[in-house]
Order: sequence, then C-alpha cells, then structure tokens
Amino acid sequence: MSTPKILILGAGYGGLLTTLQLQKKLNYNEAEITLVNKHNYHYITTWLHEPAAGTASADHARVNLEKLLNQDKVQFVKGTVQSIQPEEQSVTLESGDVLTYDYLVIGLGSEPETFGIEGLKEHAFSIRSINAVRHIREHIEYMFSKYKNEPHRTDYLTFVVGGAGFTGIEFCGELGDRLPELCQEFDVDPELVKVYCIEAAPSALPGFDPELVQYAMDVLERKGIEFKIGTPIKQCTPDGVLLATGEEIKSKTVVWAAGVRGNSIVEKAGFEVMRGRVKVDEYLRAPGYENVFVVGDCALIFNEEGRPYPPTAQIAVQEGETLGENLAALIRGELPQKFVPHLQGTLASLGKGEGIGQVGSKKLFGSTAAMMKKASDLRYLYKIGGVGLALKKVKL
Amino acid sequence: MSTPKILILGAGYGGLLTTLQLQKKLNYNEAEITLVNKHNYHYITTWLHEPAAGTASADHARVNLEKLLNQDKVQFVKGTVQSIQPEEQSVTLESGDVLTYDYLVIGLGSEPETFGIEGLKEHAFSIRSINAVRHIREHIEYMFSKYKNEPHRTDYLTFVVGGAGFTGIEFCGELGDRLPELCQEFDVDPELVKVYCIEAAPSALPGFDPELVQYAMDVLERKGIEFKIGTPIKQCTPDGVLLATGEEIKSKTVVWAAGVRGNSIVEKAGFEVMRGRVKVDEYLRAPGYENVFVVGDCALIFNEEGRPYPPTAQIAVQEGETLGENLAALIRGELPQKFVPHLQGTLASLGKGEGIGQVGSKKLFGSTAAMMKKASDLRYLYKIGGVGLALKKVKL
Repeated sequence: MSTPKILILGAGYGGLLTTLQLQKKLNYNEAEITLVNKHNYHYITTWLHEPAAGTASADHARVNLEKLLNQDKVQFVKGTVQSIQPEEQSVTLESGDVLTYDYLVIGLGSEPETFGIEGLKEHAFSIRSINAVRHIREHIEYMFSKYKNEPHRTDYLTFVVGGAGFTGIEFCGELGDRLPELCQEFDVDPELVKVYCIEAAPSALPGFDPELVQYAMDVLERKGIEFKIGTPIKQCTPDGVLLATGEEIKSKTVVWAAGVRGNSIVEKAGFEVMRGRVKVDEYLRAPGYENVFVVGDCALIFNEEGRPYPPTAQIAVQEGETLGENLAALIRGELPQKFVPHLQGTLASLGKGEGIGQVGSKKLFGSTAAMMKKASDLRYLYKIGGVGLALKKVKL
Repeated sequence: MSTPKILILGAGYGGLLTTLQLQKKLNYNEAEITLVNKHNYHYITTWLHEPAAGTASADHARVNLEKLLNQDKVQFVKGTVQSIQPEEQSVTLESGDVLTYDYLVIGLGSEPETFGIEGLKEHAFSIRSINAVRHIREHIEYMFSKYKNEPHRTDYLTFVVGGAGFTGIEFCGELGDRLPELCQEFDVDPELVKVYCIEAAPSALPGFDPELVQYAMDVLERKGIEFKIGTPIKQCTPDGVLLATGEEIKSKTVVWAAGVRGNSIVEKAGFEVMRGRVKVDEYLRAPGYENVFVVGDCALIFNEEGRPYPPTAQIAVQEGETLGENLAALIRGELPQKFVPHLQGTLASLGKGEGIGQVGSKKLFGSTAAMMKKASDLRYLYKIGGVGLALKKVKL
C-alpha cells in the first residue's frame, strides 16, 4: 500500500490543530500531509474584534504558518478551495489545480448568516478575516476623516453593530475603547458619536447567565453603546439600517455579527447540511463517507440533550486535536476515539480590563474575567506555537 | 482716542506672525488685538505633505494657539470668516457674529487653483489643512484595505498626484516612503502599486536649477514614482483622470497639488485681485484702504523685474513680522517700514533623508539638503514658540 494522502482544507482552529496533531503523532513518511489555506497565516478568529476596532494590530491576531508547520512532514499549499468532489476523492482550487486524497479534512470555516435580511450581504461588514477586519478598522477611521471635511454628515459618526451575541458584544467593548481615541485624534466631539448594538433576540448574549448579561450591558452602556434588544433589522441599505419597528438609523458603518453558517462550498459538494454545517458522526465523519472528516464551523455536533453545540473556537480546537490523533491511529490500523467536547467555560472580553465569564457554575466579572481570558489566550498560543509564540503575542 | 482695534483674520504664517510680533512689540492696552481662526491651532503648511502621506502624524504639523498667544494681549476667536465689509470696517463670521476693526489684517490663506479643469473640485483631494491631510492619509489606507477585499480592483492601488511643483514633489517623496510600508502592512505586492506625478508644464519644479530637478526626479523614480511631464490633465472623474493625450488613468485617489489662489472671500469683499490675490503696496496695504493689510497667500507682491513672487511660507513669515512691527509703529505714531522680501533659498524634501536645495548660488543635494530643511524647520519653530516648541516638534 502506498503512503496515504491526508488533505486538510483550511488552517483555522480545526484544520490547523488537526495538522499540528498529525505532525506531532506521525513519523516522516507515514503519510503525505497537505494543508491548503487561502493565506500563508493562521488567524485567531476570537481575537478579531480587536483589530476590527483598531485596539490591536491585525498582525497581532495572526501567526505565519511557516512558524507552526514542520515542512518535512507537512506540505503547505497557499490556495483557495473552489470545490470538493467527494466521489472522486478530489479537491479543485481556484488556480485550477486538483488535489486528490485518501483522507479529507474539511475545516473551511464560516460565512456570515444573514437570515435573508435584505442588503446585509452587500452593505454590511463582518468580522471574519484579517482582510475584513483591516477593512473595518480603516473604514471607521475613514469615517472620522470624512466627517471633519463634511461636518453636517453626522451619519459618518454613527456605527451599527448587528447582533449582541458573543462577537457583537466583544466588538462593542473594543469600539467603546477605541472611539474616544479617534475623537481625540480627529478633534471630534464625542457627543456626536453613536454606537447602536441591535439584537433581534429578547436578550443580549443568549445562553449566558442573566446576571452576567446585565453586567456586560452595564459596562458597555457606560462606554456609550446604546442597545436595541428584541429589535430585528429589516433591511440594510447603503445609508444605514431599517428596523422592524420602522425606525431608520443612518450610518455608513454596519457591522454584522449576528451569526455564521458553514462555508457554502460544503453544501455545494453535495454534503447534507443544516445552515451550511454537516452533521458529523462521533468520529467527525461526514455521513456516507468513511474518509471525509469535518471540523470547526462546518461541523455540526449535538449534546446529550440533542441540542447543537454552537460553533466555538474551543470545540474546533478539541475537534482538531482528536481528529489528528484519530487519523494517525487509522493510518496505523489502530482504533479511533469518539469525539466528546469538554466545555471549559466561556469568557467574553468587554474592552480593556473588562470581561465576563462562566466557568462551570462560577461567574466571573470585570478584571478577573479579563485576566482569565488572557490566560486562555496564552494557553492557545502555547498549544499551537509553544512558549516562544505565547511570549511574543500575549498582551498583558 | 480710544484703544485701536486690530483684527487679524487667519492664523497661518502671515496672520500668526503678525499677531506674535504685535504681542511682542505692544504693551498691554496699547491696542485691542483679536485673532480669528477656524481652528484653535496653527498648522505648518509646508509640513502637510508628511501627514498627508502618513509618514508623520497630523498633530506633529500643528501647534495649539493657546501655547503661542499671550491671552492678556491677544483675544482669540475660534470662528470662520464669512465676509469682509471694508467700507463698514467689519467682518462677519459664519456664526453670525460681526467684528469691527480699526486695522484689518487679512491672512486667510489659499484655495486650490483648478485652472477650470473639470471635476477637480469635486473629485480630487488637496493638501491644504489638517482635516484635509488626515482625510488623504485615511483614504490611502482605506484603498489598501478595500483592495484586499476586491483584489481585481487594482485602480485602488493607483495614486495620481496632479502637479510636479513644490508640494507635488514633496508629497511624492513621502508617498515613496509610505507606500512600501502599507504594502507590508496590508500584504500587498508592491508591483501592483502605481504613483503617477502629472505635470502640465514642460518641467518638474519650475524655477529650480535643472540639475536639481533631475536629481529630484531620479530620487523619486527610484522610489517608484512615474512622471508624466508636459502632460495636462483634461478631466478628473470619480474613476480617475483623463489626460490631454487621451490616456485615462484609473484611480480613486487624485491629489491636486498644482497651485493655489487666494481665498475667494477676499475677491468677494470687493478687493481687486489676480488669482484671488490682492496686489498690495510696499506697506502690504490693499489698494484704496489705509487700514487693510494683506499677508501670505492672499497677498501679491512683485520683484524688481516686475515678476510676482510665488506665495511661499518664507515670504508670508517675513510679511507677518514686518506688518506686526508696522502696526505697532502706526499705533504709536511712528513711521512704518517698507516690506522687502529676503529670499533665503529654497529647500524641498524628497522623503526620509533626501532633498534638494538652492541657497544663493549654492546647490544642495541629498542628506545635506534634508538636514538644512530640518534646520530651517527648527528655526521656524523657535521663532513662533521658542526653544520648548523647537525641541518638542523637530524630527531629527
């Protein structure tokens, strides 16, 4: 039997951790491991709200893949996946190149879920990649500079965040820190700047303890964020958003942070999906394929009560680690282990020195939560890049 | 006789130096001195090419007026002049306030001279104020961030500088330094970035020694600037510029740096002007008015051969100093002195560590010229704000 070919699509949490685990577990020549990714870097999605607001540089939230991969064990292909042909065991890149595999790992991440709201795709930003967040940051600064030359255009100083879930709330926390700095830099009266956080659901941060939700909203309101909860957005236009209440908010900056769906390439490949996510089995396999595995935002797994787990970084990392071990086992003819997520709690930042968290039954507030979040960031960096990366990247 | 009222419009070089000289020469209560300015800061116009490109912060190029003015001697009014009524000896601000005067100093600066080229006013930037240059800087960065999300739009990476005079050349020098940094920051291939410097006249830097002109062009070409000399721009559109040759350059960033005219408020006030500039007499008086003085870009003075001096910072500073002394003399019943400009040479920067200069018959190149320019900047800062300001601001 020839050397088995493992093809990993995407170097997000799931794909990267699968790759790193494989590179750790397998010896040279046990498998041909190929990692395909759009960029030559991995980015830390859960940090992107910072460079999006401009409170940290985009470089801070990414790591060059060269620094993480052992090139003797893993071949890296910089390319964008165009389609997957599971029947032919092949993947086509936008470049036209076709890659074949014995084992496929799909870790192609997410797309914004717009719930059919008109105009969102065209006119809203989303916090989804290094390029996207640099665009948001520059756009916000640009609005300040434009306002100073057209001082009647206060809509330039109005910012709309769609969604008060995890990402929306964390982004608002950073905006709350950043906008006063921009007011200072551009000589803008802070009273003129408005940030609306608009959420269709009846509460911010659904799933969080109500006391923590209240704490988060209080912190953000003190930073000037105005919440509109239980208020669906009906339409997004080049000039702002129209709410279901009939109210119109004029703004040139709408950031949509109200949910994601799996990458549409997966659905187009013929896999059965719910919101773009493949309901994988306990070994993270796509139904009907022994050799196709799905991790991260493209994978749908359920808890014991039959409720889907949300697509989080935490679970994607665990999936990648398990899958890497399992693929190594399979190649050696050993038995794979079932994937069971271990929820270690949830931490949300609310800007500098502020946060909330739920770890087991324990609730964390303020600087304690913010510190725990830093510790968790540190653990992740250590996991993927060792002490060197952790020391280089972590902001204390 | 009641205390004479001196009203100074504009805190650019001319207006500020008039004010500072008055505040130095006059004792308390010899005159009521009022300085009106749009902003509460003075900006150093000849430095604006740096923050426009993003090689220096906008704050670096401005000084808070509070730090320069003696509030016991000078009343500062933050306001925008709307009109001047010389017959009534009054000035109306946009706020509706009306200020009266016994002596008026007009130092209202310039507007871009577009020579009737269609679309320039609407679609081109100009390097004319702190707000304008912050806008240019942000716009350039924004183009890089937009390009990364629409990689077919190479027009986002094309920059057009209209005019290879002093300002155009200095701006190109900074762009040449800044754009590679932006390529790095935004992961953009430098080969895709184009800068065109387009000049209608048959030479860049008209009036400069040909050897210096050649040196400047060589330096800038090495930095990637492409010159189109003797090539008038016919039209500016939202999508770029159309040249007289028929060539179209697609660009979202056209910076017009090909000349200025005096502030149109002056012409509207009924003063006779050439390109918005008042041909003042040897005491800097507007024709027909004993008590109206004009300095800086609004004033037109001629050399012995009958050729107009270009509107430079150097001459504006000298005008302000002389006028301040003259006004103090007039108030005391002493004789004013005639204004004669003392040309101390010309220095142009070409980006970091590079420049050209002409001081008397001496030509300066490269780092010598760049150093001389720093020394000249230092002298100016010392003149307006003493050692403290000079030490704080100068970049060595």
